[in-house]
Amino acid sequence: MNIEMIEAAALRLQGHARRTPLLNAPLLDRIAGRRVFVKAECLQWTGSFKFRGAWSALTAMPPEVRRRGVIAFSSGNHAQGVAWAAALHQVPAVIVMPADAPAVKIANTRAYGAEVVLYDRLTQDRDVIGAALAAERGLTLIKPYDEPLVIAGQGTVGLEIAEQAADAGIVTADVVTCCGGGGLTSGIALALAARAPQMRVRPAEPAGFDDTARSLAAGRIERNAALGGSVCDAIITPQPGQITFPILQRLCGPGLVVSDDEALHAMALAFAHLRIVVEPGGAVALAAALFRADLPDTVICTASGGNVEPAIFRTALERFPG
Amino acid sequence: MNIEMIEAAALRLQGHARRTPLLNAPLLDRIAGRRVFVKAECLQWTGSFKFRGAWSALTAMPPEVRRRGVIAFSSGNHAQGVAWAAALHQVPAVIVMPADAPAVKIANTRAYGAEVVLYDRLTQDRDVIGAALAAERGLTLIKPYDEPLVIAGQGTVGLEIAEQAADAGIVTADVVTCCGGGGLTSGIALALAARAPQMRVRPAEPAGFDDTARSLAAGRIERNAALGGSVCDAIITPQPGQITFPILQRLCGPGLVVSDDEALHAMALAFAHLRIVVEPGGAVALAAALFRADLPDTVICTASGGNVEPAIFRTALERFPG
Repeated sequence: MNIEMIEAAALRLQGHARRTPLLNAPLLDRIAGRRVFVKAECLQWTGSFKFRGAWSALTAMPPEVRRRGVIAFSSGNHAQGVAWAAALHQVPAVIVMPADAPAVKIANTRAYGAEVVLYDRLTQDRDVIGAALAAERGLTLIKPYDEPLVIAGQGTVGLEIAEQAADAGIVTADVVTCCGGGGLTSGIALALAARAPQMRVRPAEPAGFDDTARSLAAGRIERNAALGGSVCDAIITPQPGQITFPILQRLCGPGLVVSDDEALHAMALAFAHLRIVVEPGGAVALAAALFRADLPDTVICTASGGNVEPAIFRTALERFPG
Repeated sequence: MNIEMIEAAALRLQGHARRTPLLNAPLLDRIAGRRVFVKAECLQWTGSFKFRGAWSALTAMPPEVRRRGVIAFSSGNHAQGVAWAAALHQVPAVIVMPADAPAVKIANTRAYGAEVVLYDRLTQDRDVIGAALAAERGLTLIKPYDEPLVIAGQGTVGLEIAEQAADAGIVTADVVTCCGGGGLTSGIALALAARAPQMRVRPAEPAGFDDTARSLAAGRIERNAALGGSVCDAIITPQPGQITFPILQRLCGPGLVVSDDEALHAMALAFAHLRIVVEPGGAVALAAALFRADLPDTVICTASGGNVEPAIFRTALERFPG
């Protein structure tokens, strides 16, 4: 992985991915006690940065391979990103989703034109289902994070942050990312190492699912004890990726951990002061920027997705009304 | 009023007002049955387009006049826009607000540094209070809409729509605006008449408070029967302005009227598909774009503000969950 791959992805994304705004608000800064800038990827197509990686991967395929279609495993944002990127290319997309994925995410993935294959997480093996479908139809698998072309696509968020921060007169800052498998985080870290080397990337995770923070501290990949039980579903992964982790290890500062309550509180504050809709997993970086002490005067954070069940959003507003 | 005044305001706003994105979403288009583009002024400083007009007025004042400070009457978005624009100029702002204005709007206006003077709408006359304060302290009144410099500031939304629509390949469209006193609508209409004359502006209002639609149909200014009782508080005004109405009459198509329920439904759909927070009065244009039949294949609408009580937003999500 290198900066040239991210620059190449940026060229492929130009005019297709949205250049999302870097937002801030005086009253939010006052709450945080520091300057907080939010890269609003919830405003990206399909409501998360995942569209970038999907588009990057699809546009790098030889046309005759792409034409046969793509397959992805996902319960949420990667599913929607791949589905819409494939629809724009008018090629088939099959998304293998757990039957208990949020109904709205299944419905949206179908609405973007993908074929959704549901499986039972307790009794069925998604890899077996996916391998059979891929072989039968000649589909190409697009992995959610441990794939260089996907990392390159997510890294375009970092290129934009470097440019937008320069426009805002920001020279040094910690850049806090919402971190699952590390695709977004490693992509941003690579981009900033090349374009804004005074900035330091720090991954943020939900408490109890801080595999990346623990792996960085231990110097080796550590796993999460569980794979469910956080409201931050979008960024719960078993462990950092084989490709992403060495990049994180080389380029990132220590991980940050927030509680589910802090993520919900950050959602309510983003609602009130930035007027954007952020999902819990997409709000952990903002929560860290607002509520963690060991950060500098200026923090840039990703609001990486906005696909949230209305009932969860209502709960956030009810619990943190002002 | 002419396009040169809007261009001059745009120069004064450059680097100070946010260039808000023009958003759209494939699944929203499917619901609407047409292409819908949303100018997301809820992402503007202080959460509404009102910052533009306030900044335009403040920056056009002679420095010695501005230094003495400004005064405004408002229960909401104009209050916050003037308060923050004055704070950035480090000049005093006095905002005369009804004591029963939403608590969060009073709190925010104070947080932006303004002095808030509350009055009782039943027993006190705000004009008397304001005139006394203005005379005593030498404050300059910034009217919310019937003021050329304010209209010029709001018109910069129209300049941006013309540019962003051209970038998106849109040639003809109806441009639906959230219309109260007509400052935003007349400003956009003037800008588009000069820069995108194939586009037609149509004001949208809540049912029962459709003074502009009725005035346009009658060919003379008509008043609303009541001044309260709609959830769309931000755009309830007694009647179109003396300056704004002749502009609307010359340049706008017929008005559009939506119910409070349709505005809440539009808020819920903007939440789900655009991931932006829109207040009821800021959602009437989107509601018209989604639910009115007499509009063309392509509609651009303003999401003019996002300062909404959490309880009202929760109600919108509860009633229109998907």
